[in-house]
Amino acid sequence: MSDNRELSTVLPVAPTRGRLRPLGLDEVRITGGFWDRRRETNATATLDHCRDWMERVGWTGNFRAVADGRIRQDRRGREFADSETYKLLEAMAWQTGTSTGSGAAFDADIAALTEAVAAAQEPDGYLNTAFGHPGQQPRYSDLEWGHELYCYGHLIQAGVAQARTQGEGELTKVARRAADHICATFGRGGIERVCGHAEIETALVELARLTGEERYLDQAALFIDRRGRGTLAEGEFGRVYHQDDLPVRDATVLRGHAVRALYLASGAVDVAVETGDEELLAAVGRQWEAAVARRTYLTGGMGSHHRDEAFGDDFVLPPDRAYSETCAGVASVQLSWRLLLATGDPRYADLAERTLFNVVATSPAEDGRSFFYANTLHRRHRGPAPAADAVSPRAESSLRAPWFAVSCCPTNVARTLAQLPAHLATADDQGIQLHQYADAEIATSLTGGHTVALRVRTDYPSGGNVTVRIDRSPPGHPWTLSLRVPAWTEGATAYLVDPDGNCRTVDPGTAEVTRAFRPGEEIRLELPVAPRWIEPDPRIDAVRGTVAVQRGPLVYCAESVDLPGGREVDVVRVDPSTEPEDGPAGTVVAPGELVAQDGPVDAVWPYRPLDRATVSVAEHTGIVLVPYNSWANRGPSTMRVWLPTTET
Amino acid sequence: MSDNRELSTVLPVAPTRGRLRPLGLDEVRITGGFWDRRRETNATATLDHCRDWMERVGWTGNFRAVADGRIRQDRRGREFADSETYKLLEAMAWQTGTSTGSGAAFDADIAALTEAVAAAQEPDGYLNTAFGHPGQQPRYSDLEWGHELYCYGHLIQAGVAQARTQGEGELTKVARRAADHICATFGRGGIERVCGHAEIETALVELARLTGEERYLDQAALFIDRRGRGTLAEGEFGRVYHQDDLPVRDATVLRGHAVRALYLASGAVDVAVETGDEELLAAVGRQWEAAVARRTYLTGGMGSHHRDEAFGDDFVLPPDRAYSETCAGVASVQLSWRLLLATGDPRYADLAERTLFNVVATSPAEDGRSFFYANTLHRRHRGPAPAADAVSPRAESSLRAPWFAVSCCPTNVARTLAQLPAHLATADDQGIQLHQYADAEIATSLTGGHTVALRVRTDYPSGGNVTVRIDRSPPGHPWTLSLRVPAWTEGATAYLVDPDGNCRTVDPGTAEVTRAFRPGEEIRLELPVAPRWIEPDPRIDAVRGTVAVQRGPLVYCAESVDLPGGREVDVVRVDPSTEPEDGPAGTVVAPGELVAQDGPVDAVWPYRPLDRATVSVAEHTGIVLVPYNSWANRGPSTMRVWLPTTET
Repeated sequence: MSDNRELSTVLPVAPTRGRLRPLGLDEVRITGGFWDRRRETNATATLDHCRDWMERVGWTGNFRAVADGRIRQDRRGREFADSETYKLLEAMAWQTGTSTGSGAAFDADIAALTEAVAAAQEPDGYLNTAFGHPGQQPRYSDLEWGHELYCYGHLIQAGVAQARTQGEGELTKVARRAADHICATFGRGGIERVCGHAEIETALVELARLTGEERYLDQAALFIDRRGRGTLAEGEFGRVYHQDDLPVRDATVLRGHAVRALYLASGAVDVAVETGDEELLAAVGRQWEAAVARRTYLTGGMGSHHRDEAFGDDFVLPPDRAYSETCAGVASVQLSWRLLLATGDPRYADLAERTLFNVVATSPAEDGRSFFYANTLHRRHRGPAPAADAVSPRAESSLRAPWFAVSCCPTNVARTLAQLPAHLATADDQGIQLHQYADAEIATSLTGGHTVALRVRTDYPSGGNVTVRIDRSPPGHPWTLSLRVPAWTEGATAYLVDPDGNCRTVDPGTAEVTRAFRPGEEIRLELPVAPRWIEPDPRIDAVRGTVAVQRGPLVYCAESVDLPGGREVDVVRVDPSTEPEDGPAGTVVAPGELVAQDGPVDAVWPYRPLDRATVSVAEHTGIVLVPYNSWANRGPSTMRVWLPTTET
Repeated sequence: MSDNRELSTVLPVAPTRGRLRPLGLDEVRITGGFWDRRRETNATATLDHCRDWMERVGWTGNFRAVADGRIRQDRRGREFADSETYKLLEAMAWQTGTSTGSGAAFDADIAALTEAVAAAQEPDGYLNTAFGHPGQQPRYSDLEWGHELYCYGHLIQAGVAQARTQGEGELTKVARRAADHICATFGRGGIERVCGHAEIETALVELARLTGEERYLDQAALFIDRRGRGTLAEGEFGRVYHQDDLPVRDATVLRGHAVRALYLASGAVDVAVETGDEELLAAVGRQWEAAVARRTYLTGGMGSHHRDEAFGDDFVLPPDRAYSETCAGVASVQLSWRLLLATGDPRYADLAERTLFNVVATSPAEDGRSFFYANTLHRRHRGPAPAADAVSPRAESSLRAPWFAVSCCPTNVARTLAQLPAHLATADDQGIQLHQYADAEIATSLTGGHTVALRVRTDYPSGGNVTVRIDRSPPGHPWTLSLRVPAWTEGATAYLVDPDGNCRTVDPGTAEVTRAFRPGEEIRLELPVAPRWIEPDPRIDAVRGTVAVQRGPLVYCAESVDLPGGREVDVVRVDPSTEPEDGPAGTVVAPGELVAQDGPVDAVWPYRPLDRATVSVAEHTGIVLVPYNSWANRGPSTMRVWLPTTET
């Protein structure tokens, strides 16, 4: 199952085939800037925070309770609570595997958590604290909601992460025993059904990639093929919730529960790549396209229903009831990354960038110790701050909360940030491709064994200049450096300056420089990050008559704490006939006005005969906007991304 | 507990005090027109339909299964299924009590269903098929979700309806036994908690009104006082879902689950009226005002969340994810009626009218055999028709469905239509008040024993002329005829023509004629029903840049079946600079255009730099609009109430 290419051994995703070759955490290092700060907070605050909360709420204790035979009375958390320990283990492993300084501190944590997990595994490989023990429901008696295979998926991903960062250890062995149990139990002639929450598929493929064992891939392919054939009972939300309404290769758009849909699509890409199934790969590509064109928020967020945490119908993208779950953002990045590796299409990196900066980066607070579960685009009430020492409801808090009853998001953010350097660049036979921009050092061997090394210097996303300096290059051996020109530059002008100082404009897509680079040469990409008005497709009814501001990849928002006189954001109107401008400290100032609140506030009925009365303007002023990912770090506030215009 | 006024004995709601005296089903008869047709369909189709479906899905069989000792294995339906039988019994009783011809046919049904219900009642009065029998959960072990008291509430309302239409019979006795059991179980020193779904409160007050037994009123008052004190466990939706977050008298707006909130508020008004608790009455009045001003759809629909069937935050009123549950419409009419009787304020009748014509009348199909559970204001996909012979999910079908897994709405519509004549008129010491307009005959005794009789002739809501003819009036004894001038006439002109032919303009509110009427005299109200553009409060973000059309009390909508060329409603734009006009057969024709669908359909990303490109117009045309309550009677369609304007 290989095309004989050499891959790093420190790879979160290691497809054996595909258009682009991923670079490992040993080949790409983030050295400064936006993501370096986020990763440092992740390493020094979030990972400990997650470990401590899971100990406190008893989720890690569940494993010990199984070993001690007291799980029936002592189990804590929802049915999928085990998966949080696994996702934390995965995050710690990737953090350990990156070259920044804070990694080694997690070896002891990994060992201790692994010991607890291993002690709960049954002799036949079964491992779940919610099922199968005396007094509990039997194993696999609730595939719709039980999440047993979902939990295995995260266990296996953690085991793979350990193998690729620390070398195969106890966690990897536990994961392999679980995978063997799955193959024995869910193989042909076994339980021929699927899990209500996809995740096992992508994990089994990665384990096959790690171990070379085809049977893990076969089992993943079986799960993909079985989905959409009604092997799960239909629940209140319909078969579509579990993507069990249509076979993966027949579906035309992502649908149902957003995280489930995106995990499933990721697993389908993995299976398609490893089995050479072009039809399946193309099907997922079409689903991605349709979802991005019609079911995605400006932030990259996916999922507009609170009721079932699901994709809405096309163009149903309400900003004030946006769900845009953090985990759906994580899952979308994961899907786009797999599609990028498979196809090389820069659109996937475009969406990943948007989602990373505006969903994944929005969830954690500045201190890395509280999180948004849902990422609304319009908050109407300040509301009270969530309790600092209590578990919060998942989607209702007005500020980030330290932990949730369903707390999938914190560990998902953590594992994403821990492996983020791997998303920056890839290689192929022609050279190196830069997909995401950050201060970084990259070194790898090109085809033929030629070593290249380069460093990226940029103040992206604040600034648009990206300088790539060649540190090492095979003398006299030409290769191609490719740089993604983000789709958000459309309508403005981006420039590429080659090592000879020649400057040319570059269109959205990919800009390339091919030459026999010499050490010390520099290539410069100049991206137009001036703030710009963005308008929505007129079919997105919920934001008609509004505009948003984007600056580079960052979506901006108005937040009440920046308005004069304690006003709330619903008094803001902006004037899109004049461009927004950069303000101090990363803000943008948009021309606009604050409308008076006197008239309609006391209305007894909010509809009236059309009279075209002009709104009473209290004050013409510049409206200060801040990056969406930074909002709600200054106490309770109201906030909106889409701003009504003075024209409506 | 009485102010000694004489009340009809055939009254759905019979407060012993209050500004207005309700008229009974023996005093008001609907004789033709819109509501007469709806009531005829209800009597000849819907009631049988509900009875047959409940037999088919086994909900009535549950009572027999209890009597036969086989309920554990044989119970069907959700935990609140018993209530549907009670609501049907109530509907049949009121239908029997009205003077139209179809009533008597239900005596046998009432007797048969009552026999089944009575056989399931325990010796101590307990009656519920979901709890308390061998193999079931214990009685009152799940007050949050078990609905036991909710079911009693509907049982008691059915018992009251029987007493007031057929005279006290077996059903009334069953209800009284249940009520006595409740008082014994939930009184002071008993289980000092409340039911997760309000309903028992209003029912117990009505039983107190029927029987004169103060203890039923006391128990209702206890339930009202206990609510909002955290006696229910907090669930996923928070305490607000059950209105257990704040005591009723402290709340400032209707909130949480919409039907629960409105039933609770109704019960609170009943308790406030009977105990003379002005503070409680004023609190509910304020909650009603705030909910109407900020949380109500143009149709009168309430509840904008699918997730928890709940009120949204102020001004969160998405048309495409409108929930606007039929039962919330029923409950809103019920609340407004109680507030109207208590205060005489015509705003309550205004909202009731809007809700009756645009929510309650929208739910049932023309044939009375299928129903909307949710009443969205924008349907984006035609979707398949629900199965004619299967139970449907409650809020997802694109057309009306014959029955639902949660099927509260059909019987709620049925009982509302059955008692509708009682909503038309009231009396007080000064005379008679007309609140709703329909062909009707009204006869009652005024204070002092003077008999008056009048008949109303109108083609309302198609036409705006309402003629009231005096058939009987005490000679030489002046009294006042009051007519509601609907709030929807604001901005247009309504006229009142007195018996002498004097014509004067009348403002929204109440128009009065006081004189010693003579038989044969006529009073004419002329209401301006020409179609008009309606604009939303700018704070309702989801409908910015759109207008709607209202014609009299009827909200109109565009439906795809009326568009040329099989187009869907998302291509419609209207031009509000020209007034809409009456079209044929009850339609309205609005000036507008159909935009081309070529450009943006293939967009890869639905947001772009603002370029003010004009939309490509395919065709300027009149847009045919139909009454919202009539939509989806011509096969699958797309539909929208709020229409984008050509200006945006």
